[in-house]
This record gives sequence, C-alpha cells and structure tokens, in this order.
Amino acid sequence: MENEGSAAAGKWRFAGNERLTLAGAVTVRGVLDTIKGNLNGNDARPVIPLGHGDPSDFPSFRTSSFAEDAVRAAVSSAKFNGYSSTIGIPAARSAVAEHLSKDLPYKLSPDDVFLTIGCTQALEAIVTVLARPGANLLLPSPGFPYYEARAGFSGLEVRHFDLIPEQDWEVDLASVEALADENTVAMVIINPGNPCGNVFKYEHLKKVVETARKLGILVISDEVYDHLTFGSNPFVPMGIFASITPIITVGSISKRWIVPGWRLGWIVTNDPDGILTKQGIVDSIKGFLNISSDPATFMQSNSDGSFSQVYERDAELEFPKESEQDEIEGAVPQILENTPPDFFQKIVSTLKETADICYERSKEIPCITCPSKPEGSMFVMMKLNLSLLEGINDDLDFCCKLAKEESVIVLPGFAVGRRNWLRVTFAIEPSSLDDGFLRIKAFCQRHAKKP
Amino acid sequence: MENEGSAAAGKWRFAGNERLTLAGAVTVRGVLDTIKGNLNGNDARPVIPLGHGDPSDFPSFRTSSFAEDAVRAAVSSAKFNGYSSTIGIPAARSAVAEHLSKDLPYKLSPDDVFLTIGCTQALEAIVTVLARPGANLLLPSPGFPYYEARAGFSGLEVRHFDLIPEQDWEVDLASVEALADENTVAMVIINPGNPCGNVFKYEHLKKVVETARKLGILVISDEVYDHLTFGSNPFVPMGIFASITPIITVGSISKRWIVPGWRLGWIVTNDPDGILTKQGIVDSIKGFLNISSDPATFMQSNSDGSFSQVYERDAELEFPKESEQDEIEGAVPQILENTPPDFFQKIVSTLKETADICYERSKEIPCITCPSKPEGSMFVMMKLNLSLLEGINDDLDFCCKLAKEESVIVLPGFAVGRRNWLRVTFAIEPSSLDDGFLRIKAFCQRHAKKP
Ligand SMILES: Cc1ncc(COP(=O)(O)O)c(C=O)c1O
Ligand SMILES: Cc1ncc(COP(=O)(O)O)c(C=O)c1O
Repeated sequence: MENEGSAAAGKWRFAGNERLTLAGAVTVRGVLDTIKGNLNGNDARPVIPLGHGDPSDFPSFRTSSFAEDAVRAAVSSAKFNGYSSTIGIPAARSAVAEHLSKDLPYKLSPDDVFLTIGCTQALEAIVTVLARPGANLLLPSPGFPYYEARAGFSGLEVRHFDLIPEQDWEVDLASVEALADENTVAMVIINPGNPCGNVFKYEHLKKVVETARKLGILVISDEVYDHLTFGSNPFVPMGIFASITPIITVGSISKRWIVPGWRLGWIVTNDPDGILTKQGIVDSIKGFLNISSDPATFMQSNSDGSFSQVYERDAELEFPKESEQDEIEGAVPQILENTPPDFFQKIVSTLKETADICYERSKEIPCITCPSKPEGSMFVMMKLNLSLLEGINDDLDFCCKLAKEESVIVLPGFAVGRRNWLRVTFAIEPSSLDDGFLRIKAFCQRHAKKP
Repeated sequence: MENEGSAAAGKWRFAGNERLTLAGAVTVRGVLDTIKGNLNGNDARPVIPLGHGDPSDFPSFRTSSFAEDAVRAAVSSAKFNGYSSTIGIPAARSAVAEHLSKDLPYKLSPDDVFLTIGCTQALEAIVTVLARPGANLLLPSPGFPYYEARAGFSGLEVRHFDLIPEQDWEVDLASVEALADENTVAMVIINPGNPCGNVFKYEHLKKVVETARKLGILVISDEVYDHLTFGSNPFVPMGIFASITPIITVGSISKRWIVPGWRLGWIVTNDPDGILTKQGIVDSIKGFLNISSDPATFMQSNSDGSFSQVYERDAELEFPKESEQDEIEGAVPQILENTPPDFFQKIVSTLKETADICYERSKEIPCITCPSKPEGSMFVMMKLNLSLLEGINDDLDFCCKLAKEESVIVLPGFAVGRRNWLRVTFAIEPSSLDDGFLRIKAFCQRHAKKP
C-alpha cells in the first residue's frame, strides 16, 4: 500500500490557480455567453448581434481583398514559415513605424515598435510590466474590462476615474488627481472610445497629458480604433504630446481592417527623452516578449535580419531561388502601406450610417437615452430608465429578456462599469441594425409601465 | 514650479519589472544572438546554422503545399476573419482530438483540447496555472530553457532531474524521487527529446508515470516533436498511460509540418478519471486562455458555434452566400486530416539522413563524443573534451570561436543545462550539414593540443 503513494490516497499535489479562474470570469465574452444562453431556439427570426465589436462576418464589413491577397501571397512564398524574432521582424516594425508616423509631427523609429498578437497581447504586456506589489493603475469608467481582468491576475490594483456623459465622455481630470497617489504608475485612455463612441479633442488630450506629467505617471493610449471616426472631432494620436510626457500607444489591424482574427498588433513607445528606457520599461517589454509567443510570421515580414541573411547567402551559393519570391514582403508592410483608401472610406461611411441609425432610433424609445451621438469606434452607451419599465430589474435582466423575447443581443452596462446602461455596437449590417432597433422598441413598449 | 509636479522633478512613478528582464535573459534565442555576434563579416562562405530548430527556410524542409493551400483557402473564404472563441473553435478542437486519438487506445473528446498560440503558449499556460507560492516543478536536465524562464517569471521554483547519457538519455528516476517533496506539483517530459534527440521506450515511460502517481504529481508531456522519429523506438504518446495518472500533453504543428511561424498549438488533458477537473486545473486553463490572446482564426476553423449560427441564419434570410464557401474549413482540420503521408515520409527520411551524417561525422572529431545516435526530434547532444583542445575555455568559448573562424553556429550546452556540451541541430539541408562538420573538424584540428 505504501508503495502506491499519495495519488492512491487521493492526495494530488497539484491544484488550479484561483486568480486565473477569477480573472477570466468578468469579461465581455463571458457576460455575452450568459445573455446568449437566454436565446429562444424557436424564434425563427435571425439573431441580431449588438453585443460585441466584430463585424467581420457582415458583407458590408468584409476586409479589403488587397489585405487577403497580401496574406495569401506571404503564405505562398514559403518565406515566412519560420520563427520570427521575439519583438517582431525588422521590416514589419519599420512598416508600423512609417504608418503611425504619418499622423505625428516626428518620425517613429522601428526600435519604438514591438509587434504583438493583437492589441490584446499589447495590453497584457503593459499590465504585466507595470505590476509590482502595492502599485495601482488608473482606468476609465466605463471602460474595456480586459484591463481589469489582466490587472486582477497580475495583482495590480485598479482605480477608476469617470468619463462624463454630459461632456462628451471627457475625462474627469479632478477625479484623476484625487485618485492618484505615490503608488500610481499609469493611466489608460481609450481613443476613439470603447464603450462610449467618443473621440477626444486635441485640447482635452493635452490636459490629460499635462495631468499625467504633473503626477509623474505613464499615459497608455489605447488606439485600437484609430481613424474609425465620423463626427466633428478628428482622431488625434496621443503620441503628439510625447514631448510633454512619455506615452505608450497600443493598437492593431483588428478594427480598422476588420480582421480581429488575424492577430497582429503593436506596442509603440513615444519617448523622445528616453525616459521609458531609463525607467526600465523598454527592457521589461522586451523581456516579456522574449518569454511569450509571437504573431504569425507571414503576417509580419521577411524573416529576421540575422537568419534571413544567413540563409540568403546560403541560397545564392547552393539553392535555386524562385525570382518572383524576391518581391514578396510579409503581409503587414503590404497591408499598412498599400490598402486602397476607398476601403477605409467605405468602412467609415458605413459606420457613420449605422451610428446615425442607432442614435435616431434610440430617440424613439422612451426608456433609453443616448447622451451623445457616437463619433468613433463601433460602440455607444445608452442609459436605461428603469422607472419607465415594468418587471425589469436591471440592465442584466433587460438584456436577458431582450435576448429571449426578441433575439437581440446587447451588452449590459455593468460589464463595462455602468450599471443600468447598455453598450450597443452599431458595427453590423445597416438593415440588421434597423431590424434590431425595431425589436428593441417593441420590447420596451411591451414592458412599458402602464400609466 | 510646484504646478509642474513630480515629473519635472524627475520623479517618475513607473518602472520596469526586473523579473521580466531576468526571465528573458537566458533563452536559446538570447544565447544564439551572442554567438552570432562573433560571425566574421569577411568570411565569404555561407553561415551554417546548427543552433536552432527551425529548418523551414531549407528547400528539403519546405512545408507541404497542401498545408499552404489550406491556409490560403481559409483566408480567401473570409469566413475566418473574426475573433475565435477563447479556448479554440469547436471544429478545430475536434480535429485535434481526432488526430491525436489515432495514437491512443481511447478517444479524446474535443473538450479535452485547448488551442494555443504554438506550443509556447501551451507551456506558458501550464506553468502559470501550476505556479503558487512555495510550489516546485521538476524539469529534465538537459532540457528546454523556456520552462525555466517562464517558471522564473511566475515564481515557481524549479528542480532538475538528470537524463542519463549512457542510458539513451533515460530519466534518472531515483533523482526524481529524491527531489520531490510535498510542494512538488508536476514533472516535465520532452519526448522525442530536445536537446537529446532520444525517443523514450514504452517501458520507461510507464515507469515515469508510475513514479508520478506515487508522488501525486502531474505529468506534463511535451510532444512537440511527435512522430519525428527515425530509429528503433517508435513514438509512444504519454496519454496511453492516462489511466494510471492524469497527463497533460502539449504540442503544435510547428515541428512536424515545419511551420513554426504559423503559431498553432494545443494543450490536451488526458484525464479519464476527471482528476484535472476536480483539482481545478481545467478551469484555470480556461481562465488563462480567457485573458490571453488567441491563435489566428483562419488557422483554426469555422467561427465559433454560437456566432456563426447567428450569422448563418442571418445570411439565409438576407445575404447572398457564395456556395463554394460552404466547403471551406479552417486550416487546421484540413492540415491534420489530409496532409499527404509522403510529406511526412520525406521529412522523416531527410532527418534520418542528417542525423546519420551528424553522428558519423562526429566520430571523426576526437574532442567531440556523441553518447548515442539521435533517434528523434532535430537535435543531438555532443560532449566536448576540452583537455584535447588548446586555448578553448569552455563550451561558450568554443561556440564563439567556431562562429568567428568557421561561420558555423552551434548552441553551447550551458544554455540547455550541460556545461561543456554542445547542442547541434541536424535539421538543415544535408549538403550544408556535411559542410558544417568539415568546418568543425578543421576548427578542432587547428585548436588541438599538440602532443
Ligand atoms: C479598447 C480595446 N482595446 C484592445 C482590444 C483588443 O484588440 P485586438 O483584437 O487587436 O486584440 C479591444 C478589442 O475589442 C478593445 O476594444
Ligand atoms: C521542447 C519544446 N517545446 C516547445 C517548443 C515550442 O514550440 P512552438 O514553436 O510550437 O511554440 C519548442 C520549440 O522549439 C520545443 O523545442
């Protein structure tokens, strides 16, 4: 018996990690799964998905055939089957630097760019780098819950500052100053905004940066929705203010090119004074990427300088080389440099159209208020007035019953930090969005409090 | 002045994370970069890369055109541009379950499979899940240093058991028992072996599993080189022994299909008695994947049940559907089920040829001994006899001078846990390997101690 040891006695020495289980619990995907669980299988109508920001399945949002061709060509060339370098292949980093520099008053260097597996891994890297015992991170409310989930796992305390609905969701700077203390390491800005659909003005962003400078904290600017703007405010990259205080920008091709499944993003250090290097942030980002997986090589570019050179010399001497392959770059340089502008125009004008539908239709529904018309990203926040409804307890209850009765999926606001609000995505086929709002209207009428 | 705050005073409140910087320091890539730094730019001969396990750039190791076509078709269909589900898309998980079940006496369920961004993310997940204060993990020496790097970052203590060169690199089971204590959570087996090129026998694996059961610890079987065997021992998947003790298997398409840049791997729970679920391991893996990035969707399969169904119903009612798209699966089901067997035969016979070259050539070099002929994976360990050399301090010195004088890159053994050994990869073009060994021989002759 003794020989059988602990296992036979039912004593296993390994166990799961509660922090991971908890961290995964309150994500947008998790909440949406709960809502979807209420769908009525007998409803013959199509389900209208207003819950998540992924319009890639809709005909109006199909990515550019140019982008598809770029990936196909990279795969066909067989030049990108190997490992990439940990921080990204030089040509791809250059392409991202070039691309983002178009909007900046200075030129980013390829050394400022670190490639990641979508913007998600960029956020993971930043949160992991900044986490240390006792430190805290300032996050917007409402916001994007992935930050909270990652910070929770890394043991990084989060504190929430408000975005003010009556002021086009601008940052409550007084609350930022009030929240910060000597253990505050950074603040996050999402621009264009998820979940609010706002686009910050130049002057406001400048004030944010000045506040951060005063506090000595880092500004992380999540620009994953960059250039998806269709209102009066143009997109202003935070990097413009890098001479005031160092900025880390994160982004990806997921949203602007409507390819969230392709998993290519970046971290960019906007740091003319070398402060991020001096503070050890750059080395930590590299360390993180050194022990993490990489985006697919064919999404990037030519294999990394060193090895490709090695092989190229090899090839000249010994192996036949298909000459047409010489022309092939990895997908990202192609996609960033050469996607036809009319693709972006079409996407943005479709989003403008659907944002309008969303805003106008919401006015016809008494229990829903939209404090400001969305001007960017793919989302808008709408306030629920529960006192006008009968038998609806809260936002979650509203969304569950709406799914059940009308086959419309909407994200309850609590998932992004605002109880009894709704986050609605308008990035879907215009006709479906119209249909969705007709159903929401019918639902609200049916549940309206009788006078 | 006061208004300028802490930043003006040079007091930044953010700083890097030393654990990350350190964790990234001793990786194979890091050490190889050091060695490459010694290359002599004036040497006109091609560099011979015997340092890392990525033969994808060599003509003899080009992946199957079938695999390339599968990815291209998935991209063209535009059905896989969206987000995947966090643990992987059901059809892809089924395909992996089917594929691995071919070698098992029972059938894996898709629920046993979790898709990851290469095997690297699978290892990251497992180490992260198992880490808890005070716990320790048993790793093979020599081994694959990514485990040490991740464990170091997660604060998981590592202890090394020996692989015995004189016994075909079998596990020193006595040392496993001696090392384990009540805080030991798991042990790692790499089969076929990196860096040793060994393939474990059925009987030996069974003993490993029985030892783990006795100790109550988890067995993690790294089978990223599965089926790359060309000696007398066939590949035996550890999952065969799952009825004795629960096994977690990790793998990827990186090595067998020679596409490490495509970044698709898996974690598989071989757990007929549900112990991993009961101990919270399965929930923790899900939690980890919920807060992590995903492999590219087109590498996987049809978008996840729920949404694809949603849209498909939408599509029927409103949008034209290209009928040929109905046939397209994501890349992985195609690749796993339909890659022509002659592709694998060709790769394995090339590896057999290069392993032979490696072994035979090494016999001609007095200061190098190869304790056993490699029978699997892409690597072999060779022992340096420094007493036969003049002016070479250690393995690192050997490799740096070899790079400088002969433009041959070899990994010094210290990087994988064995000082004054070398890890040589034979997964390169046979003619280059021949050339490489001629140069190593010339180098050793030139540096031989004069009698
Ligand atoms: C604000 C914000 N940041 C980051 C991400 C992650 O982007 P990616 O899909 O490139 O990983 C998202 C995705 O929805 C987002 O809304
Ligand atoms: C033993 C071992 N495990 C895991 C990996 C990582 O595999 P992947 O390229 O699929 O991430 C490697 C890569 O070299 C390896 O040698």
